[in-house]
Amino acid sequence: MRQIEGGVNAAKGFLAAGVEAGVKYENRRDMALLYSTVPCVAAGTFTTNVVKAAPVLWDREIVEHSPFVQAAVVNTGMANAATGRQGMDCCRREAEHAGALLGIPAEAVLVASTGVIGMQLPQDRIMRGIEKLAEAKAQGREAALDAAAAIMTTDTHPKQIAVETVIGGKTVTLGGMCKGSGMIHPNMGTMLGFLATDARISKEMLQKALREDIEDTFNMVSVDGDTSTNDTLVILANGLAGNEEIRAEGEDYDAFCEALRFVNTYLARQMAGDGEGATALIEARVTGAASKKDARILAKSVICSSLTKAAVFGHDANFGRILCALGYSGAQFDPNAVDLYFQAGQERIHIFGDGCACSYSEEDATRILSQPEVVILADMHMGDQEAVAWGCDLSYDYVKINADYRS
Amino acid sequence: MRQIEGGVNAAKGFLAAGVEAGVKYENRRDMALLYSTVPCVAAGTFTTNVVKAAPVLWDREIVEHSPFVQAAVVNTGMANAATGRQGMDCCRREAEHAGALLGIPAEAVLVASTGVIGMQLPQDRIMRGIEKLAEAKAQGREAALDAAAAIMTTDTHPKQIAVETVIGGKTVTLGGMCKGSGMIHPNMGTMLGFLATDARISKEMLQKALREDIEDTFNMVSVDGDTSTNDTLVILANGLAGNEEIRAEGEDYDAFCEALRFVNTYLARQMAGDGEGATALIEARVTGAASKKDARILAKSVICSSLTKAAVFGHDANFGRILCALGYSGAQFDPNAVDLYFQAGQERIHIFGDGCACSYSEEDATRILSQPEVVILADMHMGDQEAVAWGCDLSYDYVKINADYRS
Repeated sequence: MRQIEGGVNAAKGFLAAGVEAGVKYENRRDMALLYSTVPCVAAGTFTTNVVKAAPVLWDREIVEHSPFVQAAVVNTGMANAATGRQGMDCCRREAEHAGALLGIPAEAVLVASTGVIGMQLPQDRIMRGIEKLAEAKAQGREAALDAAAAIMTTDTHPKQIAVETVIGGKTVTLGGMCKGSGMIHPNMGTMLGFLATDARISKEMLQKALREDIEDTFNMVSVDGDTSTNDTLVILANGLAGNEEIRAEGEDYDAFCEALRFVNTYLARQMAGDGEGATALIEARVTGAASKKDARILAKSVICSSLTKAAVFGHDANFGRILCALGYSGAQFDPNAVDLYFQAGQERIHIFGDGCACSYSEEDATRILSQPEVVILADMHMGDQEAVAWGCDLSYDYVKINADYRS
Repeated sequence: MRQIEGGVNAAKGFLAAGVEAGVKYENRRDMALLYSTVPCVAAGTFTTNVVKAAPVLWDREIVEHSPFVQAAVVNTGMANAATGRQGMDCCRREAEHAGALLGIPAEAVLVASTGVIGMQLPQDRIMRGIEKLAEAKAQGREAALDAAAAIMTTDTHPKQIAVETVIGGKTVTLGGMCKGSGMIHPNMGTMLGFLATDARISKEMLQKALREDIEDTFNMVSVDGDTSTNDTLVILANGLAGNEEIRAEGEDYDAFCEALRFVNTYLARQMAGDGEGATALIEARVTGAASKKDARILAKSVICSSLTKAAVFGHDANFGRILCALGYSGAQFDPNAVDLYFQAGQERIHIFGDGCACSYSEEDATRILSQPEVVILADMHMGDQEAVAWGCDLSYDYVKINADYRS
């Protein structure tokens, strides 16, 4: 497997577009399209929030019951959440309009929205945007980047990746894009993520691969602990790579899962590192946990702690807050057995062990905590299970961005 | 029942003190004493964090197994948490020294600490501080205020209250003090809280009253979602009011619980309103929930949402974030049945109902959200259970305070 240039339309038969539709903001791309020239099998995971945005309800229905999927239309600016019946009607009209222009059934069109909750989408602009998207759809890197840029809200840069692998002697490509960067605490999905592959794989195995993968990728990310109403991660597979269909576990399935893990880990890390106001990516790496569940709970508790996040922003080696976050995570352990380390690049220091602070150099700690990627390692010495979670520091800019987001 | 002047030493037979011991900071009171002239029954609730500070371990043992309690010694600046065996030894030495000076057993002395986790207490200064405290202990408002001021960390003002009630024909007094103001997300206790009453009540009933009360008072507060390693709430009852001992449920017990609820609600609200960097107290009031548990979960989810907190700081009526927080709380409900209101003082506006935004005036909403106490009301229309939770907004100052707390 190797990483290649490009993004969501890197796999054979996929086109993408990103255009300016003026949904809420002027002078920026704010609508995106992903389109396959042939029908795809689709799998998806969606928010567990009781309050589900209209597009989430629409997509879940499509992914579960449509015979095939062939396109996804996305807008940023408004989330089409808490919009009642009018919001659902808008989803249907979007899908119908895109379907008519692309020559596919409305039931083959996914829709997704992100932005302010509670505002009705401006339907005229959305419909004109869909027309522009149908016109602009293209292969190639430029179109992929346009699409990845068009789904951003407070993200500071587009997030996309593509990889190639070999499955059953055939070259298979998997591309993806996603967006953060606030209200990010995915639970069975992420804010918005789109993956497209030319692998031939059954719907059941595609759903299984996605469901299992996100437990260690997107579900291990948190920017602010707020699980969005719009979390959506979908994958389309159009089979154009020509490999023998993956219908069961085995070598081919494993190769596919490896590519999926690589892509989703990359995107998840990107999302965490570009969290609202972030100056650093925080990676919490827990080893020696009693169970996989404990490992995940512990790692996620560290990256969710406001106090740990603020300490990293201040480059302050306040390890007590990390220990505190491990302690209230819900997992049981012996505090006197825990070893804590800070790491950045190749430099690592031991900060806590035998129940007390180690005699580390504050200067070294501050240097490590000033890097753009800070790793917090916690060895629990309770077993052999591991997990990694990704978050970001808590800065003045997080407050600034969210104190006047709507205006 | 009526509120009276004074604080933790308002009840008969209690003395208090607050002195400068230079534990970590100079030129401020940083050690406090609460002392009863006669033995007390004691009850306490402590942090559920797996990482428990040494004083929490000490106090839990005392409260559970000592025949009586007569004093509590508190320091701020350092938490004596993650300090290993040395930390436990320090607790014992503090209790022994205070016991010798006060003429009571070490096993009648509670100790408590708050501040930076992971640093060893400076024992010489602590011991000299205890000597000063034993000297300074006094009745009256000045001593109460000194004590309440001495337990503060980043609090901006002392938090204390006293009430009088009549139990079995006798006047009973209950006084209390507590401190916030970061790492506040109590779970079976609060950062540090001390209550002192002259009521005669059995240990069992005292523990029952405290345990049940905090579910709707201190446990409904959150400043930053971080459950401290030091959360401690203890109540001492010395019986000097001369009422017939409360040994069972009934009228007397109810009168005592009413006073306890009033005091703890007052202190809990004070703690939330003085959260680190807070410019506003946020009260989330959930009605019509299917169960008491749901009501509590829903109310607490709203006041814990970073995005809701930042929106209140920005005076932005971003109700979608409130709906989102209700949605990911873990409680089930019908989003289309929810009514949301903002309220401050006597002014209330309806902002969400029938699944959509109401046509409220943004100007009115901004005015309400600019008040120092903002009430968010959510009527779930799922049943008849209610709960109230208290938090604060998320400001630049929260980040500032916590980015350089140790320095």
